[in-house]
Amino acid sequence: MASEPKESPSNNPGLHATLDDATKGYFMQQTMYRIKDPKVSLDFYSRVLGMSLLKRLDFPEMKFSLYFMGYEDPKSAPIDPVERTVWTFAQKATIELTHNWGTESDPDFKGYHSGNSEPRGFGHIGITVDDTYKACERFECLGVDFVKKPDDGKMKGIAFIKDPDGYWIEIFDLKTIGKTTGAAA
Amino acid sequence: MASEPKESPSNNPGLHATLDDATKGYFMQQTMYRIKDPKVSLDFYSRVLGMSLLKRLDFPEMKFSLYFMGYEDPKSAPIDPVERTVWTFAQKATIELTHNWGTESDPDFKGYHSGNSEPRGFGHIGITVDDTYKACERFECLGVDFVKKPDDGKMKGIAFIKDPDGYWIEIFDLKTIGKTTGAAA
Repeated sequence: MASEPKESPSNNPGLHATLDDATKGYFMQQTMYRIKDPKVSLDFYSRVLGMSLLKRLDFPEMKFSLYFMGYEDPKSAPIDPVERTVWTFAQKATIELTHNWGTESDPDFKGYHSGNSEPRGFGHIGITVDDTYKACERFECLGVDFVKKPDDGKMKGIAFIKDPDGYWIEIFDLKTIGKTTGAAA
Repeated sequence: MASEPKESPSNNPGLHATLDDATKGYFMQQTMYRIKDPKVSLDFYSRVLGMSLLKRLDFPEMKFSLYFMGYEDPKSAPIDPVERTVWTFAQKATIELTHNWGTESDPDFKGYHSGNSEPRGFGHIGITVDDTYKACERFECLGVDFVKKPDDGKMKGIAFIKDPDGYWIEIFDLKTIGKTTGAAA
């Protein structure tokens, strides 16, 4: 008899394998964090990470803007601005960058908190790339800051870079992730 | 002549519309945050939000485990544990819950930081549902904590709930998001 996978409810107290029909069609749409300067972040997420600006929403009364970044092709977005919002919210896995106006030029602005020092919470986003080493060579050429290069430490083939606000972004590929995490699987 | 969309590079300093071929194939795979107690979080993400446990990775030497949650059907996952890891990292938009062993029973553990009070940074994840009002009625019945109910404030039809560690989760649907954010589009 085949043993139960480690991920079965019997091995994971609290886990439900039978899902409520009410949740059918739910999907993970966005991850939001705050940024100091859209000019710098838009450059990083488009030029370095290859994302597009899917939608921008501006709230002048509350003095903030939202930049939805993602890997979908904006050429397939509707022309109508409101329809483009709906199209954006129909995409999985976007990054929502929140810009509170003025932080980019405020000398007293202390920057945002990455979540990886006290008080901890959020850790990182993670991007699957074709080849971690090749991707990281390019990031180095582009002057990207690293938390961990792919050959640092035990976890070879996994890297962490920093976005312009200091948020961590994990970089891995499907060729090495299985072996690297094999003992933990 | 049709005007440029608001999302064009000419309207967004820093943005690159021509993407480096080196980034082709990149995709947004995971959002990681730390949790106090997997029993409580697995229950919430599966029973309340309808996610499955795609993969668990355990690191006994470093005393932590990773729980990858998502909307894919784990029945389509490979049986081999390492292949299941690779399969998981090939899925877009997973949630990676990090459990540092012992926090669930440590009376001195102060909990994790949501990022929505000082020091701020991370804000929330967002789930697209079929109907925000219907979803929120169900969340209320299930005893979920709300930051904002769908009719609170100006942004009707958008809600924020809290996960067991206090992280915010935005809830919206494609029927109302366009109208609600229409003035910002």
